[in-house]
Amino acid sequence: MHALYQKINTERIVWRIEELAKCSVTKKGVTRFSFSKENEMAHELVAQWMRDAGMTVRRDGLNNIIGRYEGKWPDAPALLIGSHLDSIIEAGKYDGVLGVIAGIEVVQTLYENGMRPNNPMEVIGFCDEEGARFHTTLLGSRAMAGNLREEELFAKDGNGTTLAEAMKEFGLDPLQYNTVARNPKTILGYLELHIEQGPILEQMNQPCGVVSGIAGQSRYKFRVEGLTGHAGTVPLSLRKDALVGTAEMIQTIERLALQYESLVATVGKIAIFPGASNVIPGLVEGTLDVRSVDDGTRMTALNRIFEECEHIAKRRGLICEFTKVMESPAVICSSRFIDVISSVLKEYKMKSVQLVSGAGHDAMALASITDIGMIFVRCKNGLSHHPDEFVAAEDIKIGTSVLLDVALKLTS
Amino acid sequence: MHALYQKINTERIVWRIEELAKCSVTKKGVTRFSFSKENEMAHELVAQWMRDAGMTVRRDGLNNIIGRYEGKWPDAPALLIGSHLDSIIEAGKYDGVLGVIAGIEVVQTLYENGMRPNNPMEVIGFCDEEGARFHTTLLGSRAMAGNLREEELFAKDGNGTTLAEAMKEFGLDPLQYNTVARNPKTILGYLELHIEQGPILEQMNQPCGVVSGIAGQSRYKFRVEGLTGHAGTVPLSLRKDALVGTAEMIQTIERLALQYESLVATVGKIAIFPGASNVIPGLVEGTLDVRSVDDGTRMTALNRIFEECEHIAKRRGLICEFTKVMESPAVICSSRFIDVISSVLKEYKMKSVQLVSGAGHDAMALASITDIGMIFVRCKNGLSHHPDEFVAAEDIKIGTSVLLDVALKLTS
Repeated sequence: MHALYQKINTERIVWRIEELAKCSVTKKGVTRFSFSKENEMAHELVAQWMRDAGMTVRRDGLNNIIGRYEGKWPDAPALLIGSHLDSIIEAGKYDGVLGVIAGIEVVQTLYENGMRPNNPMEVIGFCDEEGARFHTTLLGSRAMAGNLREEELFAKDGNGTTLAEAMKEFGLDPLQYNTVARNPKTILGYLELHIEQGPILEQMNQPCGVVSGIAGQSRYKFRVEGLTGHAGTVPLSLRKDALVGTAEMIQTIERLALQYESLVATVGKIAIFPGASNVIPGLVEGTLDVRSVDDGTRMTALNRIFEECEHIAKRRGLICEFTKVMESPAVICSSRFIDVISSVLKEYKMKSVQLVSGAGHDAMALASITDIGMIFVRCKNGLSHHPDEFVAAEDIKIGTSVLLDVALKLTS
Repeated sequence: MHALYQKINTERIVWRIEELAKCSVTKKGVTRFSFSKENEMAHELVAQWMRDAGMTVRRDGLNNIIGRYEGKWPDAPALLIGSHLDSIIEAGKYDGVLGVIAGIEVVQTLYENGMRPNNPMEVIGFCDEEGARFHTTLLGSRAMAGNLREEELFAKDGNGTTLAEAMKEFGLDPLQYNTVARNPKTILGYLELHIEQGPILEQMNQPCGVVSGIAGQSRYKFRVEGLTGHAGTVPLSLRKDALVGTAEMIQTIERLALQYESLVATVGKIAIFPGASNVIPGLVEGTLDVRSVDDGTRMTALNRIFEECEHIAKRRGLICEFTKVMESPAVICSSRFIDVISSVLKEYKMKSVQLVSGAGHDAMALASITDIGMIFVRCKNGLSHHPDEFVAAEDIKIGTSVLLDVALKLTS
């Protein structure tokens, strides 16, 4: 185990995570949307901690916050270490935040011990990974990879505010979004530490694991249209009940998804119109999220879902439409980074557990311009996106120490 | 056909229906909740029309609006003619309103032709029949029948306002709700004309029919509790997805309901928590509405629904709870009133089609204190609780004329 392990300040990491958790619009869990007051509070804390760790701090044109710790070789490409600072509704404290705070701790440990790597290190807190506000994910990291499209500036939040308007309120010029893109030549690679958000490390009794790849993802909106009517007077056989039809589709989606290994499908959100106890539902709107490490499997499953839902709709006299919101192919982590992380895990006497990430991460976006590597940290009961999300302090310490050792190996 | 048929002013009825339709909070369809600004606008119009029809007008302690046309015998029991003035969300123009406006037209036709029945006639616009605001139905008519319970004053609307608070805003003393109850000795009976809200009269090519009884109804809230989690990382087999469980329950409710003739079951409203596209739903709340003319059938079906939903919940590791919101037994119309209405229908050369009402009506509440009779008028495509709800002007004229003849037969 590396000599710096004892130098890592776990209390400081845990305290910082708790401080960020207070930047929330809900009391139950953490709710911190991008370009919100809570987001601004969190960014100010992170900026201060970055300065405390010896970094210079800037925000880019999409409100990603970036701390830079210069290396011995000033013009050498920088190793980026990052994760995101936004959250879903009523999220846990660790998702995203742990990776940013661990990154700051890596640099602060070097700084406090008078150490400087050859290459510069940059710690990044991305502005919007979850897409909870504008229903489009990886905003900050895709902009940094030069893959944000101008039309996405017009994506609307639940109040009808566009991303462009939200950026303006933050004093940013939306049309400068393309200045956020980084030149790949200035980047050595991208490292991200993240909680596993699944149950595998816990089952294998390992504090950390190395990620081999990130599942591809398709996100759709759907609408099922029937005919409203009086709940007391229209016989069941004459109804075109949009909710009963949707219920059959949700059942079918589950049945189909179960037929493919390592595929998951989720209907996370539905709304019923008009939505009264004595009215037959005439319209249902919802979301469908499908993920797999195998892009072909994902496409096959999606097509079967569309086909069977269309069949259900026809049989029930309903109209069913799916509209693509987002699609990202599966991403494979750099074999060099996997090797370095695996070798560090061995030094800690850990099995080199290779995990597939079912969740999307900022690393997916960065993969288009640089090598990426990811470290997963065990979480309690595999629970994430939930107020009870929990990572033990000992696991945080080991994870941060692994991240530090990997970063040093890559920059020495 | 009665000589007064030609005296009925159909244009006036249609115009009044259109004027009331403008008292709506939505542009699409009519949305007029009780104790709202739109409700007040509607009541002022109705009060004026009642005065134009020679009636004295009062509002009782629950904001039911009552016009009285004295008879030749001043102390004789009054024939009540009524329906409701509130609506569901995005309702049609005729539901409830048609019965009130037809009642006013009956009296106005007598008044304009210098006619006075032996018994007084009262036309009533009930304040809240649908229960769309406080989720409790027949508020006005149950109060008039002396069957409103004090605890119902604390029922809340979507903004957390209680019925008592809403009444106070209208200058009413909530605790005076029991002064609304009528002495049965002062009432001859209750007549209600209403659109059918179903397809049978249209199929039989009849403008009107007589109602034999009103289906009993059970209204429940339910909640299905599972466990939220990340939509990408939790394998389907380990999920406790509250929405997939609810979807299976909705399917089961449909399958069970189809096994009983003349029973309908509707899930009209559900809400998903936390409700994000990338989060497994942890909680679903919804409503269940079950109706049948046979109370035993309704109870049997309900018990099977509870049993099978419990079974689904157990199998999926979910918690499922049903809470009763409202229950009303089936109501049989007075045989005397059925006979009088049937004889009038024969005078109009109509078949005496006896219909069961699947919808609840204010007549249900009045049945506990007096004889009730109901006339249904044909509507287009059997459609109701929908902005496209439509009743042809000729059918309105015939219906109003039948109501007038029945009222005269009962008070002469």
